[in-house]
Amino acid sequence: MRLYAADAIGSTREATMLPLAPAYEAAFREIDADLAQFLAVAEIDGEVVGTLQLTLIPNLTFVGGKRALVEAVRVAARHRGRRLGETMLLWAIARARDAGCVLVQLTTDARRDDARRFYERLGFVPSHVGMKLVL
Amino acid sequence: MRLYAADAIGSTREATMLPLAPAYEAAFREIDADLAQFLAVAEIDGEVVGTLQLTLIPNLTFVGGKRALVEAVRVAARHRGRRLGETMLLWAIARARDAGCVLVQLTTDARRDDARRFYERLGFVPSHVGMKLVL
Repeated sequence: MRLYAADAIGSTREATMLPLAPAYEAAFREIDADLAQFLAVAEIDGEVVGTLQLTLIPNLTFVGGKRALVEAVRVAARHRGRRLGETMLLWAIARARDAGCVLVQLTTDARRDDARRFYERLGFVPSHVGMKLVL
Repeated sequence: MRLYAADAIGSTREATMLPLAPAYEAAFREIDADLAQFLAVAEIDGEVVGTLQLTLIPNLTFVGGKRALVEAVRVAARHRGRRLGETMLLWAIARARDAGCVLVQLTTDARRDDARRFYERLGFVPSHVGMKLVL
């Protein structure tokens, strides 16, 4: 949770005081129980320094091709430049390919220029507009 | 499937010759069996004239808030202007709210100007860049 809150955008929407809000644990249990969900973490010396969530989504378009959605990619600021993000993304892409997905998709906040360039280096094409409706 | 193939972008990637590719039916069965997936269609006189797929995704960010992903929104060209798309989207938003989602998200091809304006009228904010990696 500290990772999700550790930048200017995330800090406005997470609750990291201990004990953690029970909603985090409930969400974790739901992700853990869902066979279409994969949560990856990068650890260094037992500390979680990176996260990524992968969701496999059956889809009728692209001739019934399955899609993979990548969410919640974060790397701790002091561990950047060590290719942890790249390692996690390459894992997610390989996992999606193994599952028979036809594409991997994600959205990145339009303000995160570095993130967009990072994904472009990995082959992602910024062909779409990502739209959000907060409920 | 005719709806998915019926525009300039979709026509390059669907296979609508009858009998349909078995992959479509396999994908349909997988969506149907997945409790996180909802497939909506708009029917007029027994004919499917609109489609929408809704996926509920548990998530750790936003204090463990669940997200709803909208995909595969199509309305038959000759039934446009009758608010079928709006009706389907409002259904999806209500369904997401009932499921306790904190946001609804979607991506729309950057070339589909009309689609972006349609989603903006419904309250969606184009805050993100949607990136795709074809496998």
